[in-house]
Amino acid sequence: MENEFLNKSSIINYSSKNYEKKSTSSISEIIFTKNDQTTQWLNTYGITYQEDFKKVIHQNKLDDFLIKLLSDEEHPNKVILLDGLLFLTTRVLITESSKFESEQMIFIVSPNYLWSIQEKEGDYFNWIRERLQGNKGIVRKKKADYLLFLLLESIIDNYQDTYQENAELSSDQLSSANIKPTPEFTSLVEKRKQELFNFKKATISLKDTIVKLEKIEIKGFNVKYFSELKEQTNNLITNIDFELQELESKINLIFSIQGHRLNEVMKTLTILSVIFIPLTFLAGIYGMNFENIPELKFKYGYFILLGVMVLVTIGAVWYFKRKKWF
Amino acid sequence: MENEFLNKSSIINYSSKNYEKKSTSSISEIIFTKNDQTTQWLNTYGITYQEDFKKVIHQNKLDDFLIKLLSDEEHPNKVILLDGLLFLTTRVLITESSKFESEQMIFIVSPNYLWSIQEKEGDYFNWIRERLQGNKGIVRKKKADYLLFLLLESIIDNYQDTYQENAELSSDQLSSANIKPTPEFTSLVEKRKQELFNFKKATISLKDTIVKLEKIEIKGFNVKYFSELKEQTNNLITNIDFELQELESKINLIFSIQGHRLNEVMKTLTILSVIFIPLTFLAGIYGMNFENIPELKFKYGYFILLGVMVLVTIGAVWYFKRKKWF
Amino acid sequence: MENEFLNKSSIINYSSKNYEKKSTSSISEIIFTKNDQTTQWLNTYGITYQEDFKKVIHQNKLDDFLIKLLSDEEHPNKVILLDGLLFLTTRVLITESSKFESEQMIFIVSPNYLWSIQEKEGDYFNWIRERLQGNKGIVRKKKADYLLFLLLESIIDNYQDTYQENAELSSDQLSSANIKPTPEFTSLVEKRKQELFNFKKATISLKDTIVKLEKIEIKGFNVKYFSELKEQTNNLITNIDFELQELESKINLIFSIQGHRLNEVMKTLTILSVIFIPLTFLAGIYGMNFENIPELKFKYGYFILLGVMVLVTIGAVWYFKRKKWF
Amino acid sequence: MENEFLNKSSIINYSSKNYEKKSTSSISEIIFTKNDQTTQWLNTYGITYQEDFKKVIHQNKLDDFLIKLLSDEEHPNKVILLDGLLFLTTRVLITESSKFESEQMIFIVSPNYLWSIQEKEGDYFNWIRERLQGNKGIVRKKKADYLLFLLLESIIDNYQDTYQENAELSSDQLSSANIKPTPEFTSLVEKRKQELFNFKKATISLKDTIVKLEKIEIKGFNVKYFSELKEQTNNLITNIDFELQELESKINLIFSIQGHRLNEVMKTLTILSVIFIPLTFLAGIYGMNFENIPELKFKYGYFILLGVMVLVTIGAVWYFKRKKWF
Amino acid sequence: MENEFLNKSSIINYSSKNYEKKSTSSISEIIFTKNDQTTQWLNTYGITYQEDFKKVIHQNKLDDFLIKLLSDEEHPNKVILLDGLLFLTTRVLITESSKFESEQMIFIVSPNYLWSIQEKEGDYFNWIRERLQGNKGIVRKKKADYLLFLLLESIIDNYQDTYQENAELSSDQLSSANIKPTPEFTSLVEKRKQELFNFKKATISLKDTIVKLEKIEIKGFNVKYFSELKEQTNNLITNIDFELQELESKINLIFSIQGHRLNEVMKTLTILSVIFIPLTFLAGIYGMNFENIPELKFKYGYFILLGVMVLVTIGAVWYFKRKKWF
Repeated sequence: MENEFLNKSSIINYSSKNYEKKSTSSISEIIFTKNDQTTQWLNTYGITYQEDFKKVIHQNKLDDFLIKLLSDEEHPNKVILLDGLLFLTTRVLITESSKFESEQMIFIVSPNYLWSIQEKEGDYFNWIRERLQGNKGIVRKKKADYLLFLLLESIIDNYQDTYQENAELSSDQLSSANIKPTPEFTSLVEKRKQELFNFKKATISLKDTIVKLEKIEIKGFNVKYFSELKEQTNNLITNIDFELQELESKINLIFSIQGHRLNEVMKTLTILSVIFIPLTFLAGIYGMNFENIPELKFKYGYFILLGVMVLVTIGAVWYFKRKKWF
Repeated sequence: MENEFLNKSSIINYSSKNYEKKSTSSISEIIFTKNDQTTQWLNTYGITYQEDFKKVIHQNKLDDFLIKLLSDEEHPNKVILLDGLLFLTTRVLITESSKFESEQMIFIVSPNYLWSIQEKEGDYFNWIRERLQGNKGIVRKKKADYLLFLLLESIIDNYQDTYQENAELSSDQLSSANIKPTPEFTSLVEKRKQELFNFKKATISLKDTIVKLEKIEIKGFNVKYFSELKEQTNNLITNIDFELQELESKINLIFSIQGHRLNEVMKTLTILSVIFIPLTFLAGIYGMNFENIPELKFKYGYFILLGVMVLVTIGAVWYFKRKKWF
Repeated sequence: MENEFLNKSSIINYSSKNYEKKSTSSISEIIFTKNDQTTQWLNTYGITYQEDFKKVIHQNKLDDFLIKLLSDEEHPNKVILLDGLLFLTTRVLITESSKFESEQMIFIVSPNYLWSIQEKEGDYFNWIRERLQGNKGIVRKKKADYLLFLLLESIIDNYQDTYQENAELSSDQLSSANIKPTPEFTSLVEKRKQELFNFKKATISLKDTIVKLEKIEIKGFNVKYFSELKEQTNNLITNIDFELQELESKINLIFSIQGHRLNEVMKTLTILSVIFIPLTFLAGIYGMNFENIPELKFKYGYFILLGVMVLVTIGAVWYFKRKKWF
Repeated sequence: MENEFLNKSSIINYSSKNYEKKSTSSISEIIFTKNDQTTQWLNTYGITYQEDFKKVIHQNKLDDFLIKLLSDEEHPNKVILLDGLLFLTTRVLITESSKFESEQMIFIVSPNYLWSIQEKEGDYFNWIRERLQGNKGIVRKKKADYLLFLLLESIIDNYQDTYQENAELSSDQLSSANIKPTPEFTSLVEKRKQELFNFKKATISLKDTIVKLEKIEIKGFNVKYFSELKEQTNNLITNIDFELQELESKINLIFSIQGHRLNEVMKTLTILSVIFIPLTFLAGIYGMNFENIPELKFKYGYFILLGVMVLVTIGAVWYFKRKKWF
Repeated sequence: MENEFLNKSSIINYSSKNYEKKSTSSISEIIFTKNDQTTQWLNTYGITYQEDFKKVIHQNKLDDFLIKLLSDEEHPNKVILLDGLLFLTTRVLITESSKFESEQMIFIVSPNYLWSIQEKEGDYFNWIRERLQGNKGIVRKKKADYLLFLLLESIIDNYQDTYQENAELSSDQLSSANIKPTPEFTSLVEKRKQELFNFKKATISLKDTIVKLEKIEIKGFNVKYFSELKEQTNNLITNIDFELQELESKINLIFSIQGHRLNEVMKTLTILSVIFIPLTFLAGIYGMNFENIPELKFKYGYFILLGVMVLVTIGAVWYFKRKKWF
């Protein structure tokens, strides 16, 4: 177990002038730096190494409430302030899936070191390691607070990309051009609404996390970076809200089309019925077998009746024209 | 009465090194500890022993407003800060029932002791007693604040389990696959919505309780544990909201299916009527008994009329095809 | 006027050891106590004795803004903090009526005395006077803050009872069992919704009053009692919201039943029409009087046609079966 | 210009003992009092005298941001705190109109003086001048803060009166008794909703103004009076919300009536069709001209058929009875 | 690159007495003033000159987090407080387009200088330059805080104008007078709703920016000006909300018209059917060929039947009259 845990660990120490990447052979070597000049980043994979976590916590004399926190099975987004230490959990979306599966991320942050625990092995944060090693940007001049900012920025970018891909997929399927007033189409729209609702909840939860971060007060831990992240999540929420609004409009349109089509269908039936029902009645009258129906014997009775029928039809058409039915 | 009250009581004293479980033979022995090293947990059953409560309060010189508070018949979730003391009431759901019946829980907490009053005898908190006795986790190293955290965590877990069970039951019954546009199905959906609404209210109330706990300021009482609980309730509320959203979608779908079916029914009727009504009229014309209807005497009159009828039918079908009715 | 005002007044002085009820013969005797050991409760009836109010205010040197406040014609719920004094108005519901008529209550409170002004004579607060006289509970040990708490608790209980009675009445009338999709039933549901909306507004207003009370800062005035009341109003609001939710569900159900019934009616008509219209057309064909209709002369023509008709009917029934119309 | 501005100005100086009304012959005489014993009220008409405003501001050394503020063309409700000075704008509704036209009011207030600028000449505030002159109420004992309170109370009363008048007018037109399920009636309800929405926005804006006033901190400026006003606006908003709720109910009722009527109409059609279509078909059968239809030759064939028709009719009626169609 | 960046730059130094406009030949000359008497305004075009931005930031020793902030590709509205410095981004709408395209604006503000970065070259702020040069209004007497206020006021005016134009265009198209219950009209209304929703989001975001500005605490930076802007955005949001409310009413009206028209159509069909179906049945009866139908031989049988038909018709008309169908 310990080997498994260690194999996947990496420790980076950096300052504006130095950069050093270490691998550890024993958990007892994982001692967080107390040197104010250096920033330390411990990255480990796997969230179930309870015993190893315990050792690291004990030998570094961290708040023992961490042990309880790390033993939870599920972590929604959390920001918990411990003694001079921040416990933060969040989720990275796995972009391949349309079901918003996600991976757990745990961060334990102090002004001088940051311990990131990823659920699965992956390369989300490689670009940050490259910036650290190549001394690009301002990351080496800053401390663990700025490192946390970059890590969270990666996660928000991951949300934004996932959303973008999903939105394009769905906008093809549900484009205004082919709204159909069928239960199947309604069902697609409602399904997308639920996806978005789900996504919005995740984003709001992420934003809440960042808002809490902004209010954290740890000496030597600078929270100014996090407003930037908050604006990014706000922007994403705005986009989601806008798409939700579009879908709501589509539901309204579907019902409006249904209502309109029913009206059209009924109009067709009614116009035809109103014209032919009286005519058929007239034909029925003179189809009766009474011995004494004087009209039947008139020479032009048949032609007079046809004329009357034409007049009745003209009258009905004129009535519908006046009522603006067509 | 006193015996009844005492029989069900248990007192546990613990510190990081010691653990002692006592039973009491007289109420006068219930004296809360003043020793900062030890934490004391008094657990009693039954919420109607007003006289016994009064004695305990008097002999420990607790805030006498407690007497008034304990005499209330119903307790919604409450957090009331008294002098160096916390009065907290909440409810545990009784999971067997689908009607969200619940049991009253009352906690009176100071930094050194916790008095829990359960409405009915039960074993909700046995796992905590075992952890205390076996010195598992960090509970013995912590004080009454952490004990309260564990007690409340039990209660939230109880909510989560109850919700889970109910949700599975209902998702079978109301699965998207068998949505039916009948009042009976609508009624089932609305009933589930009310259940969820009820449950959400209970959870929000519980969350409010925890939010209030977070803001409590009692010297020696650490509130950092409660953020963890708040995140758990938030998570539960998110799940409930998501199911509510799904049910709302189902209502939309039901109305959409009803509208679509009506359209289909009316289309069938109208197409058939439009085709046959004129034909029937034509047949009626030549069923009349006028003496002078020249067409009747044509040798092929009947067959010509049949031809005309076929043409009329083709015309109607062509018209509906162009209107995309089928 | 003065006599009228005095006749209805009563003054109670109490401390943990003493209780004294006085009646006054002259307004000039109404001097609020300055003794920290005693609490004074002045109760008067009638809210229009402007001149008498003015005298009491002047001779006790109370904030003269009280004069302006007491001269208002209508009092919504108000909490106004004056110099070391609280001005509080609220309403008691008159339970006999279903129209939520109400009676004005005005309280002027300092740490040592409480002046309650009731609009009409009544016995809302008699149970408190009995507790004071009999030294029941802890009221005599507490001061005017606790007295105000008890007065407000009476009022909230009055709200709760009124709501309970109304809810039972309405739940009989509108029970799920006899939902009817008629405008009359819809109208009843909407009327109840308005009643509840009205009641909720009153309760929220009452809660706002109590929330404001909690934030009041007067030296020697303890606000801890009021959280208890806030929880009670919250509980009542939750109940109202739940009934509102139920009524909203009923509206959805009504529309769903209407839609379903229309579908049923139309299906019946369409099935019957689809079966009989072609048959009637066929009968019409052979009712024509053409001289040359060969089929008419076939020996079994009639019976063959009847057979064809049976086949057409079977075809139509098979079609509807396949479409799952019945 | 200057003359025009001056003609319409009036200055009132008052204290608990003195009252003096002045008219000014030159703008240079408009010097705000620095005497703590006296309160000064300058009232001017017209909001376009930019140059004159500038002079008054400069010679009294008021914050020059006032110049910018007074030059704005439109003033929504504003409360802006300047150095020891309050800039406040709001609107008075012109009650004659049903279109909620309004007049601009601007107040510049310090603890010792108040400068009110009305857009049009009118007598809104005459009752306050009379109270000042006649030393009625407590206004002379108070300072500019209380004067502002009275001015704003006039404006809120104006809102309340306007609302009351409009509500009565509309409740006649839209009374529950004559709800009609026509687009015209719906249109009236929606129009009233928009009016109310407009009015509510105005009232909320007014309330926001007062809430901001409550939080203002100027030395010697007492904000306690404004809670009273806030309660009054809250009350008005509650009334508007209640009427909005009623109108929403009416829309629901209209749709419910439409649905019910359609059901009634369709039932009538269907019942009649179901009864007569089979009968007509039977008559059609025996109207055919086949040479060999044995029934036609039965002596009582006609009467037997009539009997069958009666039975069919009875069957249909029984079917509808069972289905509870009437 | 540097030349490109410089060509488009302009520096203005001003105080209440002086005004000087400079152009720079080298980035190294861009040194922000440290003189408290002078205010400096640097305006540059283009948001992609990362290297040039970096130089300006380094040589002025500004917070290096600015480099990261300026390198973002997209800027939603942001207000980020750095060390004694404000970073603010927002958008100007491009009014020609109906699609709410926008241009990025970035402001870096300290008490003494303001650096504005516009995405595209334009003359939004020329009127401010003219006021500065001509010493109009109070701008020269104020510092960078007031300059920022004027710049933001330009942007809000731009929003208001864009909204006004769009609203007029749309109110012509969607006027109440020509509401049509067609999916096409519904679609137009929903499209306008989405436009407005979009616009409201932009305005709320702008308001949030201003609200954050109000809470900024930088020594020597006066935030009192921004309340004025907040009121203007509030006013715009109120107008948008009102139009949204109107559109919602139109949707209700469309559905109400659809429902009403369906009712009218169905009534026409039903009345006609109810009248003629029984008559046609009667005619069918006497069209039968039974040998023994006694009525057929009555001399006035035909006329009696016609009389019966008239009576049936009168009966049906009377029935509909009583049911108030016309």
